[in-house]
Amino acid sequence: MRAVVVPEPGGPEALTIVELSDPVAGPGEVVVDVAAAGVNRADLLQRQGFYPPPPGASNVLGLECSGTIASIGDDVTGWQVGDQVCALLSAGGYAEKVVVPAGQLLPVPEGVSLIEAAALAEVACTVWSNVFMVASLQPGELLLAHGGAGGIGTMAIQLGKAFGAKVATTVGSAAKAEFVTDLGADVVINYSDSDFVEIIKDLGGADVILDNMGAAYLARNVTALATRGRLVIIGMQGGVKAELNIAALLNKRAAVIATSLRSRPGGEKAAICAAVTEHVWPLVSQGVVRPIIHRTYHLDEVALAHAAMEAGEHTGKLLLTIS
Amino acid sequence: MRAVVVPEPGGPEALTIVELSDPVAGPGEVVVDVAAAGVNRADLLQRQGFYPPPPGASNVLGLECSGTIASIGDDVTGWQVGDQVCALLSAGGYAEKVVVPAGQLLPVPEGVSLIEAAALAEVACTVWSNVFMVASLQPGELLLAHGGAGGIGTMAIQLGKAFGAKVATTVGSAAKAEFVTDLGADVVINYSDSDFVEIIKDLGGADVILDNMGAAYLARNVTALATRGRLVIIGMQGGVKAELNIAALLNKRAAVIATSLRSRPGGEKAAICAAVTEHVWPLVSQGVVRPIIHRTYHLDEVALAHAAMEAGEHTGKLLLTIS
Repeated sequence: MRAVVVPEPGGPEALTIVELSDPVAGPGEVVVDVAAAGVNRADLLQRQGFYPPPPGASNVLGLECSGTIASIGDDVTGWQVGDQVCALLSAGGYAEKVVVPAGQLLPVPEGVSLIEAAALAEVACTVWSNVFMVASLQPGELLLAHGGAGGIGTMAIQLGKAFGAKVATTVGSAAKAEFVTDLGADVVINYSDSDFVEIIKDLGGADVILDNMGAAYLARNVTALATRGRLVIIGMQGGVKAELNIAALLNKRAAVIATSLRSRPGGEKAAICAAVTEHVWPLVSQGVVRPIIHRTYHLDEVALAHAAMEAGEHTGKLLLTIS
Repeated sequence: MRAVVVPEPGGPEALTIVELSDPVAGPGEVVVDVAAAGVNRADLLQRQGFYPPPPGASNVLGLECSGTIASIGDDVTGWQVGDQVCALLSAGGYAEKVVVPAGQLLPVPEGVSLIEAAALAEVACTVWSNVFMVASLQPGELLLAHGGAGGIGTMAIQLGKAFGAKVATTVGSAAKAEFVTDLGADVVINYSDSDFVEIIKDLGGADVILDNMGAAYLARNVTALATRGRLVIIGMQGGVKAELNIAALLNKRAAVIATSLRSRPGGEKAAICAAVTEHVWPLVSQGVVRPIIHRTYHLDEVALAHAAMEAGEHTGKLLLTIS
């Protein structure tokens, strides 16, 4: 099978398509013929050598895919060869075939094409696990989702609204501001000309903040939290260490939580996939939550896809089609 | 009535006994004839001018007391004049009488004297709300309670053990190490000659850390956390600002939570008092959890009590008897 690996860390040109032997499904696993794979920021970090795959995982890039089940290992129930699925992966999505623990499969929601489904697994699992399972966002609360125009941001806006929260988001351009407004965000902050802290404080503070900036935003995020607010850090694009004002946190009885999806054990990932299938997929089928796809590239154009994500002009997901 | 106030912030000598008019119970409140009041570290901070009472609260010191209900305001159900109670207070415990919202009353547990009951409300509510309600300590998990010989520490050790956790604790002397060992702590670390981080890491990391040191321990506490660990900061004796390693927190999918009991709204305090009455008081009645009282002072000796707490040689609670 064809697959994308990175023999030496580097820029998009480091991405190399190679021929690998087809994977085989072990107990509890299936092999999926990949239709499309999502491109995630973590893939860029892995390409640069900063985010190695977990022990035991493939060195093929790719944290999510959609496709058709090609074969099934022992001890797998509930899935058949030929089922159309999407999947949360530890690695291996940028390939013609990938082996997946059965607990990390999700059905393709009704009303969504097989290609489009590749845009859903990672963002839906990330937003559901962090905003709803970890931070327990409640109806009527204010969610601040940084980077609203990205894949996770677009899902956070849609799910926040669908579950009755007020959603504020930050974006970096007027065009993205218009995009997320159309998507339903209640409060849109262009960080290139506005300070999110003052705007969020004027609204009473954010009950939940979903953050991908880490250190660069830590102090401002704590200042922007409401009483009993929960700051959930899922990315560190702005660095890894920063001063924490514990007194400010204590006065608000607030929490700083940092998580990642990839490093979780299989049982936790399976629980998240099951919760997403139960709580999010019906909203997708109803059209309330949509996959937001900026552009689809062919596997042969993988370097272009990475360059586009690095340029940061996209709104929604970038996908790779495989066949 | 006689009551302790602080006309000018300062040392123990700043504590001044004055005559004030008796308080009157408003709707939803009762007046308690105080038998004894607990001395808390927060009282020292308030005496020094660093911890003003919440808006609307009395400027009389004292965050907890025991006593007998003397009168009852409108809209109070479930309590009678003459009931023996202990209470969580926003202020006012160092006095002959104090007015208390009915939701912050707890019965005196069976088998505990009226004086002893003054040692229970603050520590039981603090430990229950933080270790169990906020951090969800589970049976079999490892709880690290810093300052194990103090009032909160002695309650954390007892409740952690009673609910099936493994309990580690830090103390500052060999005498205190012996004391907390007798109280049931599984792992006792004398911080004057040992590094708690290495010992806790060797045990697999702490699932929950109850911390009163704030900034001084932040980095070490994060290092000592287990995967999915919860660091709950309830005091800042070691400062208010410190560098947070977000990457370390993210790799563990861990949380830093800072809380305080005093600033919570009445409804939350009432929920905590009800939970303590339900979950903790039966253990007190059975003798599984005991009030640990180091020494009792008379109200006239309040300056001695504060000096003793500042000296830090106590094991368990310091109380003031009022009548």
